Amino acid sequence: MGNTSTSRSFRETTLPRPLVDLPVSVDRGLAVPLSAQLCDELRAAMRDGALKPGERLPSTRALAGQLAVSRTVVTEAYQQLYAEGWLEGRHGSGTYVADLLTPVRPGAGPPSAGRYGAASAEPAIRLPAPVLAPSGRLRHGRTDGRRTPAAPYDGETGGTGEAGELVDLRPGRPWVRDYDRAAWRRAWRGAADLPPGDDPDPCGLPRLREALAGHLRRTRGILVGPENIMVTRGTGNGLDLVAATLLRPGDRAGVEEPGYRVARNVFAARGAEIAPCPVDADGVVVDGLPGDLRVLYTTPAHQYPLGGRLPMPRRERLLAWARRTGALVVEDDYDAEFRYDVAPLPALYGLDPRRVVLLGTLSKTLSPDVGVGWIVAAPELLDAVALTRDALADRTAGPVQQAVAVLLERGDLERHLRRMRLEYARRRAAIVEILGPRVMGDTAGLHVMVELPGHAVRPLVEAARERGVLLETLGRHHHGPPRRHGLVIGYGSASQAQIRRAAAVIAELAERAEAGPGPGT
Amino acid sequence: MGNTSTSRSFRETTLPRPLVDLPVSVDRGLAVPLSAQLCDELRAAMRDGALKPGERLPSTRALAGQLAVSRTVVTEAYQQLYAEGWLEGRHGSGTYVADLLTPVRPGAGPPSAGRYGAASAEPAIRLPAPVLAPSGRLRHGRTDGRRTPAAPYDGETGGTGEAGELVDLRPGRPWVRDYDRAAWRRAWRGAADLPPGDDPDPCGLPRLREALAGHLRRTRGILVGPENIMVTRGTGNGLDLVAATLLRPGDRAGVEEPGYRVARNVFAARGAEIAPCPVDADGVVVDGLPGDLRVLYTTPAHQYPLGGRLPMPRRERLLAWARRTGALVVEDDYDAEFRYDVAPLPALYGLDPRRVVLLGTLSKTLSPDVGVGWIVAAPELLDAVALTRDALADRTAGPVQQAVAVLLERGDLERHLRRMRLEYARRRAAIVEILGPRVMGDTAGLHVMVELPGHAVRPLVEAARERGVLLETLGRHHHGPPRRHGLVIGYGSASQAQIRRAAAVIAELAERAEAGPGPGT
Repeated sequence: MGNTSTSRSFRETTLPRPLVDLPVSVDRGLAVPLSAQLCDELRAAMRDGALKPGERLPSTRALAGQLAVSRTVVTEAYQQLYAEGWLEGRHGSGTYVADLLTPVRPGAGPPSAGRYGAASAEPAIRLPAPVLAPSGRLRHGRTDGRRTPAAPYDGETGGTGEAGELVDLRPGRPWVRDYDRAAWRRAWRGAADLPPGDDPDPCGLPRLREALAGHLRRTRGILVGPENIMVTRGTGNGLDLVAATLLRPGDRAGVEEPGYRVARNVFAARGAEIAPCPVDADGVVVDGLPGDLRVLYTTPAHQYPLGGRLPMPRRERLLAWARRTGALVVEDDYDAEFRYDVAPLPALYGLDPRRVVLLGTLSKTLSPDVGVGWIVAAPELLDAVALTRDALADRTAGPVQQAVAVLLERGDLERHLRRMRLEYARRRAAIVEILGPRVMGDTAGLHVMVELPGHAVRPLVEAARERGVLLETLGRHHHGPPRRHGLVIGYGSASQAQIRRAAAVIAELAERAEAGPGPGT
Repeated sequence: MGNTSTSRSFRETTLPRPLVDLPVSVDRGLAVPLSAQLCDELRAAMRDGALKPGERLPSTRALAGQLAVSRTVVTEAYQQLYAEGWLEGRHGSGTYVADLLTPVRPGAGPPSAGRYGAASAEPAIRLPAPVLAPSGRLRHGRTDGRRTPAAPYDGETGGTGEAGELVDLRPGRPWVRDYDRAAWRRAWRGAADLPPGDDPDPCGLPRLREALAGHLRRTRGILVGPENIMVTRGTGNGLDLVAATLLRPGDRAGVEEPGYRVARNVFAARGAEIAPCPVDADGVVVDGLPGDLRVLYTTPAHQYPLGGRLPMPRRERLLAWARRTGALVVEDDYDAEFRYDVAPLPALYGLDPRRVVLLGTLSKTLSPDVGVGWIVAAPELLDAVALTRDALADRTAGPVQQAVAVLLERGDLERHLRRMRLEYARRRAAIVEILGPRVMGDTAGLHVMVELPGHAVRPLVEAARERGVLLETLGRHHHGPPRRHGLVIGYGSASQAQIRRAAAVIAELAERAEAGPGPGT
């Protein structure tokens, strides 16, 4: 009987009684072939448990009738699902759902014991203990598929925002709400001008490398040609490529302590041993650097997070140390375009281009969402990095590079930088005005440091949270036990008015904390 | 005398006679301040060797006169360069170029011995022996800043191209010259609609995750929701994130042998020990898989490079092995949309979603330049991967995700796939027509395998190169000593006519090789 019967009318069957009126349907209006639609629907029904293992399917004639399609459509669908293992035939008695496994969607229903054994809700894969330090921004470690809604913006830089919304003073983000929309559109129209490539150059689009060479010359006084530049996806990517090229598991990699968490993570994830190197108010302390580091990651223009600038004599001693020990110095220039008082000192790279690699990024100047940065290095080292990049199939998307080249060539980025420089300077001034001598770090960048007594930090952060202010501690930036305590305050994510309000909250809480425990506190 | 003299007229100086008519100039038409321009010019002159260490600079008055600028401009420039260490004053006798180091541009002139010691042309950084296998596409391991020019295209699919140009039959690239330009432009206009973000979600844009869920359902019969999908930059990135999450240095990672070079490299670069697992004409051999692998990378839909499809019974035994040993199976679905005969078998992921991670990419279906792929996995595993991604500041650029979402939502990608499916099928048929029974591998994807006697491969590849055909050997896809020998031929980079011509060359050379050495060969 089953599929081959021709003498039965629609909807008549022999035992066992098969399902009729399956929860499936097809739509002739779709571009997808009917038999493919039917396969989809049947698989869905089998996964969801609407069709259970061992159940008998309708005859092709019956189902064709239900769906008002030709019998061939159903036959093709059944054949495909049979070939795939979803259905099985039992000799002379029809088509049955094979013994299948749990639904794909967790939570769609209790797992049914299938031929693969009882499935459980526990993750099947044993995960090792994490070694990487998270940012703390993922909510409960889970992503829920929805972007965290941005605080409402009233359309003006410096707007007040709505009462009651959170003010985010955590560091690491630039202000992305004030940008030239026409320039942005123009850049992405330019991106479309680049036909899809089939063999991207690991060093990046020549046009962008030229534009970056000009940008580096104008904004940092660094004189290099495109042969010294590789386009990356940002600082993390640049550092990771250098690490993958240079380091072998067990090699020692120096990081600033406290310092940039991502740098530590990148090194650790390449199997390197982290060597934390102390910093002071002037940046990394050179005397006493270990002699066995393969690489040292440093932020000499504006130490992250303490905010100091490495003075010239210390730069020279650092390079002498590197020459003596054979270490590579990785210089992260992450926010060097944002100095509000004096011109920056020359990059370490310019002082010893064979022993230093410079990393730059648009993450803090434009947006972390764009994903463009650069490595500046001697061509021989770049060639080795290019081989690594090619081996790992790592690249920066061509259209993104094209869009950024447009922004650079038209001067849009530099105009943006000038505008942002003024805005960030005002915000920093507001913080200093309210928090006064507590504020540490150069008049630069998008963050300041506020030192606090160790015992006071956690309570202050929690009290601030209750009052709608999100803060980040200095502790998070340490690899080992923190020696300094306080807050790292970023002013890239909040408007001036929000900053004033939030800084006043911090000032009040800090005064209380410094006054110490007392009646009523 | 020097800079402080006021009684001297322009261009008069005292001994030692300083340079006049420095090779520097400024342009009042530029938006850059004159003193900054002058600093740039002087630094350039010092780097290039036009100004040598120890040379005396003109007085501020003299240089101001030469440049027709105010004396303040020159004074500011000298002061800045002095602060930066380029210039030094000698008491009472003027301004001198400090003892500097080699020019930044290699080849700009012989290195001068500076205060940093004699610079040599050797790279200063000792690079370790490379462990990663390169693609072989970088010319002599050096990048020269210019894209390899594409073979001339006559504007039609199947065009003949010009006589004498190279025909590239190496695998790994899709055909990117036949695409819907209006759809491409529309997608990048859509990219501009997404404002620059300041806090990208490590799992990717929700809109794109929804679109991918639909794409996976329609093209692969995989039924998952956005919570099972993470947007990556491609297969390499997806595998690397899984490796960084799951593996610790020394863990054993299984790869197919022969297999995808990038997968081996990604595992090795995370410090894992590579365990090569034999494959046959049906894909990875399951019996005899080691019991101590943390992960196994496999290409069951279309084994790369031998081209077999893992049959259902072997799929079940593979998953039983994974359950028994606790290994994670990473299934790379890299070209599953391109089957030309029968529908694909269900993905391993669908058969055991907690023990399998599915990787997908647009690299082969659209372009490697776009940089979008996906991981499909149980949400708990994706959460762990998201934490890794956040820790490493790894992301897929927002505007790129938006553009791809547009292509998916409008059906542009599926139309492109349908068109390409027909074209690739024709090309494959041409190869089979000409090379006949030598061709191995399923009627799928963008490559075939041609087996040859081991001794014949290298000579054939070189002879083909002389006749304008670029080929890749099977040897390159092995981790250890090759057990099979031959060619992996890709048909994504060459038109039908080019393929016919090149296949005829291969057929001729293969016949000669199989005939063995003889008079006149």
